[in-house]
Amino acid sequence: MNAIPAQALNDRAARFQRLAETGPDTPMGELLRQFWHPVALASDVGAGEAKTIMVLSEELTLYRGDSGEPHLIGGRCSHRRTLLKTGWIEGETIRCIYHGWRFGPDGACVERPAEADPGMPRTKIPGYPIKEYGGLLFAYLGEEENPPFELPRKALIEQEGAILRNGVERWDNNWFQQVENSMDATHVSFVHQALKVGPFGAAVTSSIPQLEYHETNSGIRQIGRRADNNVRVSDWTFPNNNHITVPGLTPEDPWIDVFVWMTPNDDLNTTRFMIYSIPPEADDASRDRFIAYFDEFGEYDPASQHDELFNMREWNNPNDMFVGLTAAQDYLAIRGQGRLADRSKELLGRSDMGVMNLRKLFWREIEKIETGEPTKVWRPMTEAERLPTQPGSHAATA
Amino acid sequence: MNAIPAQALNDRAARFQRLAETGPDTPMGELLRQFWHPVALASDVGAGEAKTIMVLSEELTLYRGDSGEPHLIGGRCSHRRTLLKTGWIEGETIRCIYHGWRFGPDGACVERPAEADPGMPRTKIPGYPIKEYGGLLFAYLGEEENPPFELPRKALIEQEGAILRNGVERWDNNWFQQVENSMDATHVSFVHQALKVGPFGAAVTSSIPQLEYHETNSGIRQIGRRADNNVRVSDWTFPNNNHITVPGLTPEDPWIDVFVWMTPNDDLNTTRFMIYSIPPEADDASRDRFIAYFDEFGEYDPASQHDELFNMREWNNPNDMFVGLTAAQDYLAIRGQGRLADRSKELLGRSDMGVMNLRKLFWREIEKIETGEPTKVWRPMTEAERLPTQPGSHAATA
Amino acid sequence: MNAIPAQALNDRAARFQRLAETGPDTPMGELLRQFWHPVALASDVGAGEAKTIMVLSEELTLYRGDSGEPHLIGGRCSHRRTLLKTGWIEGETIRCIYHGWRFGPDGACVERPAEADPGMPRTKIPGYPIKEYGGLLFAYLGEEENPPFELPRKALIEQEGAILRNGVERWDNNWFQQVENSMDATHVSFVHQALKVGPFGAAVTSSIPQLEYHETNSGIRQIGRRADNNVRVSDWTFPNNNHITVPGLTPEDPWIDVFVWMTPNDDLNTTRFMIYSIPPEADDASRDRFIAYFDEFGEYDPASQHDELFNMREWNNPNDMFVGLTAAQDYLAIRGQGRLADRSKELLGRSDMGVMNLRKLFWREIEKIETGEPTKVWRPMTEAERLPTQPGSHAATA
Repeated sequence: MNAIPAQALNDRAARFQRLAETGPDTPMGELLRQFWHPVALASDVGAGEAKTIMVLSEELTLYRGDSGEPHLIGGRCSHRRTLLKTGWIEGETIRCIYHGWRFGPDGACVERPAEADPGMPRTKIPGYPIKEYGGLLFAYLGEEENPPFELPRKALIEQEGAILRNGVERWDNNWFQQVENSMDATHVSFVHQALKVGPFGAAVTSSIPQLEYHETNSGIRQIGRRADNNVRVSDWTFPNNNHITVPGLTPEDPWIDVFVWMTPNDDLNTTRFMIYSIPPEADDASRDRFIAYFDEFGEYDPASQHDELFNMREWNNPNDMFVGLTAAQDYLAIRGQGRLADRSKELLGRSDMGVMNLRKLFWREIEKIETGEPTKVWRPMTEAERLPTQPGSHAATA
Repeated sequence: MNAIPAQALNDRAARFQRLAETGPDTPMGELLRQFWHPVALASDVGAGEAKTIMVLSEELTLYRGDSGEPHLIGGRCSHRRTLLKTGWIEGETIRCIYHGWRFGPDGACVERPAEADPGMPRTKIPGYPIKEYGGLLFAYLGEEENPPFELPRKALIEQEGAILRNGVERWDNNWFQQVENSMDATHVSFVHQALKVGPFGAAVTSSIPQLEYHETNSGIRQIGRRADNNVRVSDWTFPNNNHITVPGLTPEDPWIDVFVWMTPNDDLNTTRFMIYSIPPEADDASRDRFIAYFDEFGEYDPASQHDELFNMREWNNPNDMFVGLTAAQDYLAIRGQGRLADRSKELLGRSDMGVMNLRKLFWREIEKIETGEPTKVWRPMTEAERLPTQPGSHAATA
Repeated sequence: MNAIPAQALNDRAARFQRLAETGPDTPMGELLRQFWHPVALASDVGAGEAKTIMVLSEELTLYRGDSGEPHLIGGRCSHRRTLLKTGWIEGETIRCIYHGWRFGPDGACVERPAEADPGMPRTKIPGYPIKEYGGLLFAYLGEEENPPFELPRKALIEQEGAILRNGVERWDNNWFQQVENSMDATHVSFVHQALKVGPFGAAVTSSIPQLEYHETNSGIRQIGRRADNNVRVSDWTFPNNNHITVPGLTPEDPWIDVFVWMTPNDDLNTTRFMIYSIPPEADDASRDRFIAYFDEFGEYDPASQHDELFNMREWNNPNDMFVGLTAAQDYLAIRGQGRLADRSKELLGRSDMGVMNLRKLFWREIEKIETGEPTKVWRPMTEAERLPTQPGSHAATA
């Protein structure tokens, strides 16, 4: 679903619009295609199964071969344009339901049973590299050779004894509003204090932070200083990951590392993928609480409660003070800007410096795409650095 | 939701289109902004609560302060354009969920907690006068100083011993079709005789009326003469109120005054607000019947039964022969013209003189808006005049 | 619902688009209006009832007079454009709910009760010939004198002792994709072998056919030769009927004749009407099975299961191996091309010769419409010819 016809935009609006676009023929779309993105939960598709997914405004077929290996190819058969996911898996290939054309993991057509030849160059559809990691499936949709598969702070995810859990939320608005929210430390003092205060809001407190933003080799380091002993740091990796830390379920629990990716499905839909990692030093009680919590509440998706959340007269949703409450609060603020925020009517202040920096960074890189200059080479944030925790009082859990 | 792009219209269609438009940049939208309109039921929002409403194609925040006073301001925060209704009330102000900007009843930003200054001129959003009266909330959306708050025949509403009830119907079509229906006395002889005949249809009878329309100081007086002892009179107040009288629930009950407003939400949605007033001379049994009836049936909204009504093979909806049946019959006729009637394909006859007069009146006033001439100064219809009742046989109630 | 604005199309896409259009002002729409089409089940409307239907992008009122005779006239009253179906039947006429204008079966306005004259030339709305036959209602929407009402192989339908049943499916995509599927014998070897194999797929087998297409006096004869004793023949009647034969419910049952019409509702919706005819030689057990089967499963409509079918992880829908399974398989393949297939991105092969022939045939006839030349005069396929059956093994029924 694409957002606004170009001719309807004046110059200022057009400049904002370029931040929101994700399709292959847009500068931002081209920029985003230089990176690996999570595109599905590993559990979304089983061996021998296929489904259609939207990534960066492309319709794609995600399937696993009989071996269980994941593959990602074009969404439709090159013959009569039927959705491939309704076909069936044979080995590591998928066969179209309509006339049996068969495609391999690289998108090449390897069989056309009712034709003399097995397949020809023009019959190829896209085929993209895909990796399974940390409960997620990551893909690279660029035309160039794919870069090495790296994640921010893999060491934290991979450390022996850590327990990992995933989250997924299918938001019905543009990805860039969500990225902006990552670079907006002030929002925590309001959005996550809204009416119900969960452990996260309570820990960060509602005082106004002094803000610092530093462009790093990986992205942007954000520092929100609320007091000398209350300094919140998050490391944002270009173009759409954020590494933050949140308190555990009770004051006895260690803080949890959260890696959030905001993957555009198209210009008006975004999937958030999360990896939660509880560190090895957690004791058995903490580990049990963490596991039991995710078993019960791990699948909360605020967009599925859109009407309940926006129309509630009291804060009675969701029924979870931790991940669910935080997600619902963010959803009200960000989705409340609309499916595509009209930035031409904004009034930014000094406290929006994170958002301003972020836009400038993206405009700088987009312009390189447009002029054909090389974009910045970002380095993976691989070191296993822990982020500082905050000292705020800890609220009761749900 | 706005209806038809201007370039798609030929001149004749464009002339009709101007009758339907409601936005602030249209001549009709400007004309409508010279008047107070009901915008909500008083019960729609409680003390300390907020909701988003659409009025005249504007997105607005309706809230009550902690005092219970109603306020009406712009729908979105001037900072990052988040819906204000997801924020929270503080005294008579509302605070945005996203970064805590706080707005007063006049739309001025009175606090920006993460900025040095409390608020600046450009941070102001719209703020409109609002009054609670007769169970409804009325607002004035014009840019000029608001005129005195007057209602048609307030004395009938305010007379000691009268019992008032409200109705609200959220129709999914353009407001002007509904206003036209008010000026179309002939429709009663058909629409309200359709298959099921309730007390209203029975009282008015199905004979064809002789029509008279008189422009008054307040709007248009409509007279439909079906027999010497059957003269139906209604007083329509410019631009969108109608005062009619309808029979009670049984022949023993006195006739009831009904004041209907048709408030445009946008070009394709209209809310009808009603005040029903049973006069003081009603005896205890009539009063009890009236109250019991509204307790059971008062919330009927035909648009909520759109599919059932349009697809029914027998007249089995609604389950109420009085207000509900009348509303459903009108809905079939008016909503049956489409969300926006295509007037360029109509064939009006002499019996449509009320509709023709009405359109000419609006075109006359719209042209004054366009040429900058002063529009007609309408005077409130304040006198407590009762309308004549009709003698038709009275059908059984549901 | 019309599909693609003309200005968005390049020449190649425009040429494909012309195959899909159905409105009265399009060449294909004009061509289709030379023929009778089924427009409803006879049971869709009872005596004294009316409903709105869409046929060839026209909104129409289908009603039966008090006599039970079916009539088909314009969808809206010529006065104020209200849907006529909400009015009521009087004799063989229908009266508008709004002001009582009354229309006859030819669309002429025969009464305007609130006007002096009964009706005038410009008050006429369309009125089309309609016939009831074989459980269906057929209409002729052309401006010219209607041709004789003929159906393909009526003799098979009318033979003494045959049992007839109807099917109806309301597909949410363009009609031409469905016609193409009729001329695509190869698809049977894949679509109807998809995961579950019903009697139809089992009988035809999955081997690749050698194809022959012959333009006949009536349309196109299609021959798919899978082996010397496995020759599948179907007779397609211009412009949108297909006569095929399918195996019965068990190997003991005779093959069944199926006549399928694909009637465009508009450019993005199509209704498939079927007549199933079990021949007189069926024994009592076969007849009982046939009747019991249609009582239980005859109303399956794959579009009503759109989400279940497209999102299922295993083939567990529909719960019927015969008509339902076949319909669902076709639906996945054809609806899977989208609501309007993007033919500009296709890659046809030699096995698509049926589809190519079909398009050429339609382009040839459309061009005659555009240049004003006479189109081909098709003759009815009246002879009671049976089609050859296939020898494949017979699968168990549901």
